[in-house]
Amino acid sequence: MPSQSDCVFCKIVAGTIPSTRVFENDSTLAFLDIGPLAEGHLLVIPRDHYERIADVPSELFGAVASQAPMLGRALLEVTGAEGFNLLVNQGRAAGQVVPHVHFHLIPRKTDDGLGYRWNAGSYPAGRDAEIATALKHAVTKR
Amino acid sequence: MPSQSDCVFCKIVAGTIPSTRVFENDSTLAFLDIGPLAEGHLLVIPRDHYERIADVPSELFGAVASQAPMLGRALLEVTGAEGFNLLVNQGRAAGQVVPHVHFHLIPRKTDDGLGYRWNAGSYPAGRDAEIATALKHAVTKR
Repeated sequence: MPSQSDCVFCKIVAGTIPSTRVFENDSTLAFLDIGPLAEGHLLVIPRDHYERIADVPSELFGAVASQAPMLGRALLEVTGAEGFNLLVNQGRAAGQVVPHVHFHLIPRKTDDGLGYRWNAGSYPAGRDAEIATALKHAVTKR
Repeated sequence: MPSQSDCVFCKIVAGTIPSTRVFENDSTLAFLDIGPLAEGHLLVIPRDHYERIADVPSELFGAVASQAPMLGRALLEVTGAEGFNLLVNQGRAAGQVVPHVHFHLIPRKTDDGLGYRWNAGSYPAGRDAEIATALKHAVTKR
């Protein structure tokens, strides 16, 4: 099981840094974020150390994610939130601070001031097809 | 396979509404968001119709999510982005517009003006333990 000696989440997995655990199984640990955006804000992580989403074996990523529906139901029941966001950030440019893959589950209420900055654009004619072709090619190579 | 006749994403799955597809398998379809936050912004959905994360069978949710590392690698390669966000919104209060579960994969660059509004709080003494106990109880019931 890969772990990294200077990683705060690996220390939480090992129990050498305390955390408030909510759920765990062989692959996954869920605990409260100590800097919550809303009461009940959860972090859900693979026990194994991978820095980025793109590095995580597909099956493990699926196993961690597969707990989200169950944890989401528990969050709504306990916090009385109306909904929630599931968010994973890859890379500093995307807001990732701790370099150990983690899912945020963030309880939401109407007009709570949270959420993603939405500033939708559109594709110039033909650009969407161009990008999709390149993506299909990149996907097929794998 | 559940589908819903008035759901725009079910129509995209069925092919009665066009989309720019990038990847598909038995459970999952990935296509370009027509209102992209950045070039290459992808939507990744289960073929089956479920309105909310919390409604999706655990295994299916994991199967859809398990494509994110591969799609993320393709996105970074094609768009030259530095990172990306994986985002799923449950409920109007959380920003969900189309009532068919969908993962956003949003390519990110430094200072692109996107990202989640981060306004971290903290728990009053004892409140974190209280919440965690309630969550553990809610999780155990399932």
